[in-house]
Amino acid sequence: MYSIISLSKLINELSKLPTIGPKTAQRLAFYLIGASSDYVQRLVEAILEVKDKIKTCSICGNFTEDEVCTICKDTNRDQTVICVIEQSSNVFAFERIGGYQGVYHILGGVISPLDGIGPQDLRIKELLTRIQSSTINEIIVATNPNIEGETTSLYLSKLIKPLNIYITRLAYGLPVGGELEYTDEVTLARAFEGRREI
Amino acid sequence: MYSIISLSKLINELSKLPTIGPKTAQRLAFYLIGASSDYVQRLVEAILEVKDKIKTCSICGNFTEDEVCTICKDTNRDQTVICVIEQSSNVFAFERIGGYQGVYHILGGVISPLDGIGPQDLRIKELLTRIQSSTINEIIVATNPNIEGETTSLYLSKLIKPLNIYITRLAYGLPVGGELEYTDEVTLARAFEGRREI
Repeated sequence: MYSIISLSKLINELSKLPTIGPKTAQRLAFYLIGASSDYVQRLVEAILEVKDKIKTCSICGNFTEDEVCTICKDTNRDQTVICVIEQSSNVFAFERIGGYQGVYHILGGVISPLDGIGPQDLRIKELLTRIQSSTINEIIVATNPNIEGETTSLYLSKLIKPLNIYITRLAYGLPVGGELEYTDEVTLARAFEGRREI
Repeated sequence: MYSIISLSKLINELSKLPTIGPKTAQRLAFYLIGASSDYVQRLVEAILEVKDKIKTCSICGNFTEDEVCTICKDTNRDQTVICVIEQSSNVFAFERIGGYQGVYHILGGVISPLDGIGPQDLRIKELLTRIQSSTINEIIVATNPNIEGETTSLYLSKLIKPLNIYITRLAYGLPVGGELEYTDEVTLARAFEGRREI
């Protein structure tokens, strides 16, 4: 089989990345060979810089370049409302909608017995510490709308409700722009249940 | 807008790669943050190694780590048959089919007046030098089956035929596994024209 050692090595490493199959890896490798040394240098430096600089916020567990992330540090944000999410990347999704003024707490996953992930593997203890050491008015659970997310949400509510803290879950319902006809029954039933006066 | 400087920089550089949109770039960046330092090191080294080691073969223009590529160096291959292709990546496609025993010549593109690419921008002069300096029995033109590829093919045949060299073009016809019903008329007409006795 015809191959060029350094090229095969690069294709192999690239195809370990998520969403990158062998064909895309090959395409990217050929592109990098032809790309300006300047660009390749910038790309490599950006990769190494991220590995070097990014750590997790000591309060919420979000990615940050400092000890505490910019959101936890922001005195204009409501530090008494915590949105509990699965992972750091979700912060970007919520920040894009723009309206949320509270802070976050990253669990680092969800309870998933099949994958051997229990509550002790998540940043739940850290969440309880936050709740106990400062005034919290609301905990918004924003785990994914699937079985694992739902299980985690129930687990958290059983843990947190007894502490007399208002705990909510993101609404289930019709996705905006979707079509009733193509909406699954479970979603439709939840949308029905959660109907609101107009 | 919420952002982390080093992360945004990486997402920006990644999204300059072909087939990588902003969403995939973000996903890759998050993956790299969580990936083992070991993997990231190997990836970065593989990128730099490719940039450092890969040059073009002084005979055919294919990618190689040496002065002359392994195919041009291979005395078991028929050096009198040259398959003319657009770019180095095509070599891998031809080598995968396995049966071809000749060598290659990389044009580095195709004639495309709209993109301002003329014959002088391609490695055509180098091809003529190869033809004149050694015995060549056949030139197989394997440019892409589109207008630019066809134009380049015609240009090459006008240039090479007068030198009394057998010059061929890859067959047009039905793609294997395709369906007649969904084959476009031009392809169908070419398949008809090129029909062979069975």
